[in-house]
Amino acid sequence: MIRLHLIGIGTGNPDHLTLQAIKVLNAADLVMIPRKGDSKADLAELRRTICAEVLTNPKTTIAEFDLPQRDATNPSYLAGVNDWHDAIAQVWMQTIAAHPAARNVALLVWGDPSLYDSTLRIAARLTVPVAVRMVPGITSIQALTAAHAIPLNDLGAAVTITTGRQLAEGWPTGADTLVIMLDGNCTFQTLDPTGISIWWGAYVGMAEQIILSGPLADISPQIIATRAAARAAHGWIMDIYILRR
Amino acid sequence: MIRLHLIGIGTGNPDHLTLQAIKVLNAADLVMIPRKGDSKADLAELRRTICAEVLTNPKTTIAEFDLPQRDATNPSYLAGVNDWHDAIAQVWMQTIAAHPAARNVALLVWGDPSLYDSTLRIAARLTVPVAVRMVPGITSIQALTAAHAIPLNDLGAAVTITTGRQLAEGWPTGADTLVIMLDGNCTFQTLDPTGISIWWGAYVGMAEQIILSGPLADISPQIIATRAAARAAHGWIMDIYILRR
Repeated sequence: MIRLHLIGIGTGNPDHLTLQAIKVLNAADLVMIPRKGDSKADLAELRRTICAEVLTNPKTTIAEFDLPQRDATNPSYLAGVNDWHDAIAQVWMQTIAAHPAARNVALLVWGDPSLYDSTLRIAARLTVPVAVRMVPGITSIQALTAAHAIPLNDLGAAVTITTGRQLAEGWPTGADTLVIMLDGNCTFQTLDPTGISIWWGAYVGMAEQIILSGPLADISPQIIATRAAARAAHGWIMDIYILRR
Repeated sequence: MIRLHLIGIGTGNPDHLTLQAIKVLNAADLVMIPRKGDSKADLAELRRTICAEVLTNPKTTIAEFDLPQRDATNPSYLAGVNDWHDAIAQVWMQTIAAHPAARNVALLVWGDPSLYDSTLRIAARLTVPVAVRMVPGITSIQALTAAHAIPLNDLGAAVTITTGRQLAEGWPTGADTLVIMLDGNCTFQTLDPTGISIWWGAYVGMAEQIILSGPLADISPQIIATRAAARAAHGWIMDIYILRR
C-alpha cells in the first residue's frame, strides 16, 4: 500500500517549514510537484526551492506534473470542481504508477492540508489503496495574526472562519471576529463599516507581504487599491483578512 | 527598546518547531521559561527540551521564573484573570531587568500566540517600552485535524472556533462545523447528539496523543471515560474536539 503524505509547508516562507515536515519529506521516495502552466500562483518554484534547501535524501525522486485545468465554462460550479478533482486524481495515479518502487509519496501543501484545501478530497478519489498521512503546517490565518501581532480571538470569545462568498450574504451570526478567506471580490466593501475593524494581508509570510489595518470605513478604499496594484504587479494574489466588530 | 519575541512552538511535539522559530530563538539574548510549581501542565520540561535540542547560540541565556498563581477565590472571574495577568507582567519585567544587556527576549508559546493564549495580552501590560514580534506556530486545531487526517471545513463552508463555556449555551448559529477549545467539562454531552459527529483528541501531536471519533451518540461515553482516565494517569490533560452536523 502507498502512504500518501500531505505535508503542510506554510504560506510561502520556506522558514515556515516544521522539523516534522522536513523529516517526512526526506523519508519520501517520491515528491510530486504540480505545475499550472506559466502561472506563478502554482508556487511550483517555492516547492522546488524547499526541496533544494531541505531535501538531503539522494534516493528521493521529484516528479513534476501538469495540473489539469478546471472547466470554468461548466454551468454548475460544483460539478466543474468535481470533474476537476477527478482529473487531478488521475494525474496523481499516473505519476505514482510511473514510479512503481515508490511506497512513501509526498505532496507539499500550501498552508495546512486541513484548511480550505482540496488535497484531502482529491486523495479520497484515488482508486488505488492509499493510507493518507497529514503533517500540519502554518496557515495563512496564523501568518496574518503574526504579521499584525494581534490575537485572533477576543478573551474567551468565538471566531468564525468563512469565505468571501458566504460574507456576501451578510455578517454571520454567532461571532464578532471573522476570518475571511478565498475572497477575490473585496467583499468587505459590501458591509456597513460602522464599528468594524479590519486586519488585511496579502502574500502573508512571504517576502512580498503587504499588510494594512484600521477602521474599515477609513481603510477600505486603500486596501482595494493596494490589492489591485499588487495583483497587477505580481500577476497573482493571495490575500486574507480579519474583521472584528 | 526591548524586542519581545512570542514564538509559537506547536502543541508539544518538538518537531512542530518551524525553521523560523529556531532562528528567532537562536537570535535571542534571553529566553524566559515559566514554571508552575510541580505541575506538568506548565510544559516547562518541553521548553527545556526544545532549548536543549535547537538552541546553539552560546550567548543566549535561559531564565526560568515562577508563574504567579491566579486567585481562584476572586468572585469575579475576569477581575481575577486581570490581576493575574498584571502579576505575570511584573515577573516578566523583573526577569528582563535582571538581564540588562538583553535586547531580544523570547517566550516559547504553546501552540500559536494568536489562539486562546494570553501572552499577547500580558505583553500589552508591560510598562517598559517593548516591540512585540510573533512567530506563528502549529495550533492544536491543526494537530487534531492531522491526527484524524480530516479537513477542518466542508467545501466552501464556515467553521466556528469557540469554547466549552460558549457551547454550554447551545450550538452557535452560522456554522455546521465547530472547534471546541478550553472545555474541561465535556460540554458535548449537553447537546442533542442526533446527526452530530465528533473528532476528539487529547495531547494532540505529543507522544501521549489519544484520538477518538464517531457519531456523538455512540462515542460520547467512551470519550468521557478515556479523558478521565488519561487525566488521572498523567496528572493533567489538554484536549480539543471538532463537532460537525
